[in-house]
Amino acid sequence: MKKKHEKESFDSALKVQEGIPQPPVLNETAVTRFKRTRKQLPSVEAFMEGILNFNRTLFSQAITLVESALPEHQALAQEIIARCLPHAGKSVRLGVTGVPGAGKSTFIEALGTYLTGNGHKLAVLAIDPSSSRSKGSILGDKTRMEGLSTHPNAFIRPSPSAGSLGGVARKTRETIIICEAAGFDTIIVETVGVGQSEIAVHSMVDFFLLLMISGAGDELQGIKRGIMEMADAIAVNKADGDNKSRAQIACTQIKNALHLFPLPESGWSPPAITCSSLMGDGIPGVWDTITEYIRFTQTNGYFRLKRQQQSKQIMIDSIDQRLHDHFYLNPEIKTALRQIEHKMLADQVTPYQAAAQLLELYFRAMGK
Amino acid sequence: MKKKHEKESFDSALKVQEGIPQPPVLNETAVTRFKRTRKQLPSVEAFMEGILNFNRTLFSQAITLVESALPEHQALAQEIIARCLPHAGKSVRLGVTGVPGAGKSTFIEALGTYLTGNGHKLAVLAIDPSSSRSKGSILGDKTRMEGLSTHPNAFIRPSPSAGSLGGVARKTRETIIICEAAGFDTIIVETVGVGQSEIAVHSMVDFFLLLMISGAGDELQGIKRGIMEMADAIAVNKADGDNKSRAQIACTQIKNALHLFPLPESGWSPPAITCSSLMGDGIPGVWDTITEYIRFTQTNGYFRLKRQQQSKQIMIDSIDQRLHDHFYLNPEIKTALRQIEHKMLADQVTPYQAAAQLLELYFRAMGK
Repeated sequence: MKKKHEKESFDSALKVQEGIPQPPVLNETAVTRFKRTRKQLPSVEAFMEGILNFNRTLFSQAITLVESALPEHQALAQEIIARCLPHAGKSVRLGVTGVPGAGKSTFIEALGTYLTGNGHKLAVLAIDPSSSRSKGSILGDKTRMEGLSTHPNAFIRPSPSAGSLGGVARKTRETIIICEAAGFDTIIVETVGVGQSEIAVHSMVDFFLLLMISGAGDELQGIKRGIMEMADAIAVNKADGDNKSRAQIACTQIKNALHLFPLPESGWSPPAITCSSLMGDGIPGVWDTITEYIRFTQTNGYFRLKRQQQSKQIMIDSIDQRLHDHFYLNPEIKTALRQIEHKMLADQVTPYQAAAQLLELYFRAMGK
Repeated sequence: MKKKHEKESFDSALKVQEGIPQPPVLNETAVTRFKRTRKQLPSVEAFMEGILNFNRTLFSQAITLVESALPEHQALAQEIIARCLPHAGKSVRLGVTGVPGAGKSTFIEALGTYLTGNGHKLAVLAIDPSSSRSKGSILGDKTRMEGLSTHPNAFIRPSPSAGSLGGVARKTRETIIICEAAGFDTIIVETVGVGQSEIAVHSMVDFFLLLMISGAGDELQGIKRGIMEMADAIAVNKADGDNKSRAQIACTQIKNALHLFPLPESGWSPPAITCSSLMGDGIPGVWDTITEYIRFTQTNGYFRLKRQQQSKQIMIDSIDQRLHDHFYLNPEIKTALRQIEHKMLADQVTPYQAAAQLLELYFRAMGK
């Protein structure tokens, strides 16, 4: 009896009361104004003049276009990038990674201040595919690089808003091109020290720096094993005050660990050094290591080779990714996949047979 | 003058003397006999009975079919594999790798002798995509496993003849299915300790053992950095005679190195142990470690999860590979690729633009 009553009142609560009509979701006047604004984007020529002469407003706006998901913004962005290409490629591209807490922001602030003080023009970008979730944990809070962010020869940009790692990486690579065309001679790409984004950063920089700190004995804890392998140098940060001797011990341990691994393709054996972002000790040393590496690899040809390999790899990966997506987005594949996967996990077909069946279906659908 | 004379005599030496006609390359009678033999292959039913009752001749012949490149052999092989699948999957699959000289063959002989002595039925397979060049460096010389190779409960098969790593790996995976259907409860897949084949082996086994020896201080030299990460245990071999204490020191160093890395997904922390394949010391200990790992991962569910992940990954990789090949084999792509790559390496287009242009061409050609 009670149940019925509850149901009735529940029903009545669901009844929508007649009321005043909802206001339109879009403000027509605002839409018209917005559309006009969008149409009033500067021309490619205006953008190019702005970028090549480093007009900060146009330069930033161009990067916003690169980061935008709107098709018309993308079309314009691609035109700008194509026009920037002949002016790009002349910077030193650095990747900086490290576990959270290694002091990446203060390190970049210290290195950046040193570089801009020596006449360099520095752009700091970031890759953090999780940045929508963590609300821009890296570089989001510009106040952490207060000194650098106001310097006329520095440009700091947080990670493009979240998306697939591939998408974020692509936007960052395109932003590098625009920065280089604008005359930045040093680009730092920062990444969070966990996960796949290091590999993406490694694939777009000339030099990859791993920042560490002395910890509870296990200096490599939390660092994915592959990350150490990619480093062209390891800097033990926070080598100051009470922590100085501990940092030096950690540095020796890391040197020993690095010694265990074979020489990388570059022919450069990655050094381990200490530095203090807080006091500035060792910061010039880090930069010396970087310039020494650049000289070394430019002499032995690896510098150019690596950039060419990076370009080729990006093209191949980009094609593979698109072929992969195109396959799995096919509606017939979507339907068949679940069934075949189920059969495979029940050991009724081998993974190869499953793949062959799906591929046959796909190519038949493609030929239609 | 001398030069000219030399040249003349050189010319005359190049002149081919007329001789008797070459005999035909193919012996027609032999070809006819061979073709007849090929048609007289046993039926799927005969193969299945042979495999399930472990008739060594039919069993070996089935594996030869798997390894064959002939389309008609492959069709028959795939039928046999499909029929074997319900009987497969019940073995413990071990991967063994190590630098050349680590004593893989003697180790497998020692472990295999221990296992067959304890009633196990053991198949030893190998992956060596370079085996045509090195003339079957691993397992090719069966005399190195003389005791094991003649044991009724052991089966030793060299690496399938050279091809792409993917092809070799596929043949080995399919051979595992046939071995399991034939009642082998333990499968060892051996690999050379250098390069990509470790990753292929790791993707088809339950337990991955890295074999090392005490060296000149740098215990990890020559081992790709990623290999250590994949190991479920590391055994320092040749811990005998004068070498015993050195092996123990090396083992301690490896333990320390392993300690630096975070716990793998399995929840199992890889131990380092010593053994002597020559004296047999530590061989039961290696097997105890393996069985302990199997028990541990079967209890926490990782064992089944890993096999399912392996299957899914093989299917995905196999599809991606085929899509990739299909793209690059397209004649229009072949022509366009060279031009676009050239433009890209001259920094006239970005890798993304190059990829987009090629993809547009490909999908247009596909839809025709």
